[in-house]
Amino acid sequence: MSLIVQKFGGSSVANPERIKNVASRVAEYYKRGDSVVVVVSALGDTTDDLLDLAGQITKTPSRRELDMLLSTGEQISVSLLAMALHELKCEAISFTGAQVGIRTDSSYTKARIVDINTQRLWAALKEKKVTLVAGFQGMDSNHEITTLGRGGSDLTAVALAKVLSADSCEIYTDVDGIYTADPRLVKDAVKISKISYEEMLELASSGAQVMQARSIEVAGKFNIPLHVRSSFTKNEGTWIVKEEKSMEEVLVRGVSSNKDEAKLTVSGLPNKPGVAATIFRMLADEGINVDMIIQNIGDPNHTDISFTLPKSDADTAVNSLQKISRKVGFKKISTDLGLSKVSVVGIGMRSHAGVAAAMFEVLGKNGINIEMISTSEIKISCVVKRQDMEKAVKLLHQKFELGKKTKKK
Amino acid sequence: MSLIVQKFGGSSVANPERIKNVASRVAEYYKRGDSVVVVVSALGDTTDDLLDLAGQITKTPSRRELDMLLSTGEQISVSLLAMALHELKCEAISFTGAQVGIRTDSSYTKARIVDINTQRLWAALKEKKVTLVAGFQGMDSNHEITTLGRGGSDLTAVALAKVLSADSCEIYTDVDGIYTADPRLVKDAVKISKISYEEMLELASSGAQVMQARSIEVAGKFNIPLHVRSSFTKNEGTWIVKEEKSMEEVLVRGVSSNKDEAKLTVSGLPNKPGVAATIFRMLADEGINVDMIIQNIGDPNHTDISFTLPKSDADTAVNSLQKISRKVGFKKISTDLGLSKVSVVGIGMRSHAGVAAAMFEVLGKNGINIEMISTSEIKISCVVKRQDMEKAVKLLHQKFELGKKTKKK
Repeated sequence: MSLIVQKFGGSSVANPERIKNVASRVAEYYKRGDSVVVVVSALGDTTDDLLDLAGQITKTPSRRELDMLLSTGEQISVSLLAMALHELKCEAISFTGAQVGIRTDSSYTKARIVDINTQRLWAALKEKKVTLVAGFQGMDSNHEITTLGRGGSDLTAVALAKVLSADSCEIYTDVDGIYTADPRLVKDAVKISKISYEEMLELASSGAQVMQARSIEVAGKFNIPLHVRSSFTKNEGTWIVKEEKSMEEVLVRGVSSNKDEAKLTVSGLPNKPGVAATIFRMLADEGINVDMIIQNIGDPNHTDISFTLPKSDADTAVNSLQKISRKVGFKKISTDLGLSKVSVVGIGMRSHAGVAAAMFEVLGKNGINIEMISTSEIKISCVVKRQDMEKAVKLLHQKFELGKKTKKK
Repeated sequence: MSLIVQKFGGSSVANPERIKNVASRVAEYYKRGDSVVVVVSALGDTTDDLLDLAGQITKTPSRRELDMLLSTGEQISVSLLAMALHELKCEAISFTGAQVGIRTDSSYTKARIVDINTQRLWAALKEKKVTLVAGFQGMDSNHEITTLGRGGSDLTAVALAKVLSADSCEIYTDVDGIYTADPRLVKDAVKISKISYEEMLELASSGAQVMQARSIEVAGKFNIPLHVRSSFTKNEGTWIVKEEKSMEEVLVRGVSSNKDEAKLTVSGLPNKPGVAATIFRMLADEGINVDMIIQNIGDPNHTDISFTLPKSDADTAVNSLQKISRKVGFKKISTDLGLSKVSVVGIGMRSHAGVAAAMFEVLGKNGINIEMISTSEIKISCVVKRQDMEKAVKLLHQKFELGKKTKKK
C-alpha cells in the first residue's frame, strides 16, 4: 500500500471515453489498496478554446480575469473524473486548487506555489477516497484564483507529491516515455528507461515537450522520482531520477530538436555599456523568450548582436525593436525565419571531452552548415537551416549510437 | 446615482458579440455614475452541454460533483464580461459565488442561500468597479461549491439586491417583458407594464418561463421591485411590484399555458389511510414535480387517483409506480400523454366572482373538453387535449379582453 500521485494530461481526458479509461486505471490502484491523489489537466483543447473566446473579446485581457476563465477547464475535468470513478464504485472527491489549499503568490497566469495546506487532502485520503485535484491552479492570500502557467498541472502533481511525501509521482501522457530522439523523426529511436533530472531539464528546454521544465526542476530539488508513461498502455515508461554513477557511462542520452526557430540580428549598435541590457530587458518585458545570444564586434565603435527565439515571436520582437531604434541607435535589423535547433544532451559529457567536436564533424561532413552554437555543461545545441534539421537529428542519433541496432546497453 | 443590480440570462451572453453588447449596456449606467452589480448566467447552452458531458459518463452523477461541474459555466461568463468591460474602459472585477460570500446550505443542485457576506462587494463598489457575480452558485460552510437550481441566477440577483438595499433590480432576458399571453400563440397579446408578485408567481408556475418562481417569491417577501426587460432593446419592460389597489380592477392579468403535460391515473387503490402519501412521497423523492391531484372514490373499498406532471417525467413516474405496485396494491396505471394546461391569473378574481364560470363556458361553447380543473385564490387552471391548447388560449385572451383592440386601460 503506497501513496501515489498521478497526473493526467489534457489528451488523456479529451472526451468522455478517455475519462472513463483514466478512471479505470485509477480504480486499479485504488482497489489494490493504494492511496491515490489524481491531478488532471483541462479536457483536450479546452484551454485553447477558452483563450479563443477571450481573444474574440479583447486583445489585452486582464490577467486576473484570464485566470478566472482558464481555471474552469480543470474544474470541469476533475468533476467528470469523479463521476466516472463513482460509476466504477470507487469513492472519489474532486477539489479545485483553492479548496485543497494550494496557496500561490499573486502573479496571475504564472503564479508560484507558496504553500499547500494538506488538511483537506489528508482528511479525504483518510476516508479512503481517491482525491482529485484540479491541476494548474491555486489561490492567493486574498482568495483570488491564480494559474501556474502552461504545463502547470505537472507542477501541481510534483508539489503535491512533495508535501504528501508520496511514494511515487506518475505523469501520464500520450507518449509512452522519453525517447533518445523524436520517434516521428527517427524510426530507430529507443525509449529511455532512466534519465537524470538535469538531462531531462535540458531535453525539455531544447524541444522535448513531454513535461514542463519548472516541475522537473522542483522534482529534482526535492528528489521526487517521476515516472513518465502512457495513459493508453500499461508499459513501463521513463523514470526521471537523481543522477546515478552509472549514468555517466552514457555519453549522450538523447537528441532533441526545436523546429521553428528564428534568428534576429541587430547591426551597427553603438559599442557602449548598457545597450544589450536595454534590448533584452525590453524583450523580456514583452514576454519573449530569447534563447541563444551572440555578440560580435566589427569596427571599434560598433557591434552586432544576434539572438534566436521561437519563430512565432519574431514579428513582435521586430516591432518592439523598431520602437526603441532611436533610443538605442542601431542601423538595421535582419531576420532569418527558416531555422531549427538541434541539441545533444547527456551528463556523460561532463567527464568526456570530444562530444562537441564529434557533433560538428558529423554535421560538417554531411554538408550541414552550423549557424550558431551554444553549450552547457551537459548539452550542445546547434542552429541549422530548417531543411537540414531532420537529417541532422538522424545523423547525431546514429553517430552517438542511440538507436535500437547500435545501442550498447 | 443609484445602486442597481442587473441580471443577464444565458441568451443575453450566448457569444462574444452579445457579451460585448451587454458590456456596453452596463457601461452606460457605470458612466452616468451608478454603482452597478451584474449577475450573469452561463453562456447560451453551456449548462446543457456540461450536463450532456456528465450524461455520457454516468446516468446518476453525484450532486456534489454536478455542482463542481455546472458552476464553471457562470465563472466563464463573468470573466469574459469583465474583459469586455475593461475593453470599454470600465473598471470591473468578477467574482465566483464563493468569493463574494454567497453562503448556502449543503443541498447540492438546489441549495438555499443562508447568508451573504457583503464585505468584498462593498469594497469593490467603493473602488468604483462594476462588480460582476457568477449567478446560480454559492458555497456551503465547508467551502463546497453549491448551485441554486435552474433559474438560480435570478435568485442570486434578487438576494444581492436585498442585502445591498439596491434601488432597483433589472432582469434582462430575450423577451421585452411579460405579456398577457405568449405572443407566439396570440398575435394580439399586450405587454403588461405592471404586475403584482403574486400574479407573476402564478404565471411563472403555470407556464410563463421568464423568471424563476422562487426568486419572485423572495422579491415579494422583501418588496424588491423587479424590472423584467430585453437586453436587445431599450424599451421599458414589465415591473413586478407589490400589489396596488388599482390592480384589482383588472379581472384577469394574463393567460398562461403549459404545452406538454401528462396525466397518470392509478386505479383500484385500497381505500385506506397512507396510500396517497406513499405514492407522492416516492414521486417527490424521485424529483418528479406533480401538479394537479384528483381523487375519486368508486366502490367503498377502492379509490382512483389521477395527477398531472410534465410529460418528460411520465416514464420515470410509471416505472417508479410499478416498483411499488405490490406494496401499495393498486390494479392499473393508465397514462394520457397528449395534454396541456391553460390558466388565467389575476388578483381581481379575489373580489370578483364568475371568472371560473366564464372560463368554463367559453371553453365548453367552443367544443373544448376540460379534463381536470384546479384553482387558487387568483388562478384557474384547466387541463385540455393538446390540440385544443392554442385555441383555448386565444379564446380566453379574447374573452377577458386582454388584447390590443379590446383592452380597457
